Amino acid sequence: MKRTYQVAILLFDYVDALDFAGPYEVFTMSVFSEGDVRKLFMNQLALKDKPFQVFTVSKEGESITAHNGLKVIPDYSFKNCPAFDVLLVPGGPIKAMKNVMEDQQIIGWIGAQPHALIASVCTGSFFLGKAGLLDGKDATTNQSALSLFGRTFEKVNVVTGRRYIDTGSVVTSAGITAGISMTLSLVERLYGKEMRDRTIQILELE
Amino acid sequence: MKRTYQVAILLFDYVDALDFAGPYEVFTMSVFSEGDVRKLFMNQLALKDKPFQVFTVSKEGESITAHNGLKVIPDYSFKNCPAFDVLLVPGGPIKAMKNVMEDQQIIGWIGAQPHALIASVCTGSFFLGKAGLLDGKDATTNQSALSLFGRTFEKVNVVTGRRYIDTGSVVTSAGITAGISMTLSLVERLYGKEMRDRTIQILELE
Repeated sequence: MKRTYQVAILLFDYVDALDFAGPYEVFTMSVFSEGDVRKLFMNQLALKDKPFQVFTVSKEGESITAHNGLKVIPDYSFKNCPAFDVLLVPGGPIKAMKNVMEDQQIIGWIGAQPHALIASVCTGSFFLGKAGLLDGKDATTNQSALSLFGRTFEKVNVVTGRRYIDTGSVVTSAGITAGISMTLSLVERLYGKEMRDRTIQILELE
Repeated sequence: MKRTYQVAILLFDYVDALDFAGPYEVFTMSVFSEGDVRKLFMNQLALKDKPFQVFTVSKEGESITAHNGLKVIPDYSFKNCPAFDVLLVPGGPIKAMKNVMEDQQIIGWIGAQPHALIASVCTGSFFLGKAGLLDGKDATTNQSALSLFGRTFEKVNVVTGRRYIDTGSVVTSAGITAGISMTLSLVERLYGKEMRDRTIQILELE
């Protein structure tokens, strides 16, 4: 049987919509073979036959309101969330950053996933930093938040001009659409270039 | 006072997440000036001071489940939906296509917006075709659905190899991420290249 990965996407109020929807799409539209592409579009591909099984999770499991108003209902709360292999942490504007940084439950939860590959998009890297996951590591964030990132986390090696930085168990990416680039790189790392190229074609990425 | 646009995004079960989240992000992250970029990230930009005021709408206004499981709560139903200038019609896999094509209420509603600029993403162009909005016009869709598109709508001039086709009041785009390219072109058409370039920078699009 082929190896599959459980992917949890963290949601919270003011999260940026594309920060999570981009990686969501890359993970959920990746398939094992060319034959599976047709099955995917025909709604004939069972979840268990897909490389990534993706769900959303928030602290309480209640509906959240993203930046600019989009309302999303998470699949799980921290309490009933199943085990996962990958945790995707999106970011958002200052209200998202303040709320999450000051929420010890969320930061503690992110930091308490030692077995997961943890990947952030945009200002989501601030939450990884706050959880102590980036100390002594290279990391990046939204280009407009880079200097604040450096001032906030003195133990982090802030890297500029890169769309994403993969340190192994922790991966950070730059602003918004860089999350798509990063997730594609994870598809390649976990399954190889062929799956990555197929996903790019399915998404009709330029 | 600056001209602003009301944008409605149609949602339905099995809609593709990035089909609507891509355009949602482009519209909602577009701002009038460089000074507004900081305000946007600081959550200090009032909705009325943004070029596009975006909301989601579904037939009944009840929560919908997108392709691959993401659950979204629309802002409005057809009954209580406010007036709008732009209608964004996303697509989805075969289940989305069948459900919507066979739903006379949804197709009728799409066709009954003569004053709106109507734009589709991916297989959303099938719904515009069904509503009779593409007869005698150039149009495109997801690359894997192009031949079905031509067989289904004999009066439509199906165009291949283009990311989007702007015929004035009706605009169609190719698969999934082509919706981002199309929406950026609408930003440029309605407000000019400077706003488009600023949005690309905010989204950190490659």
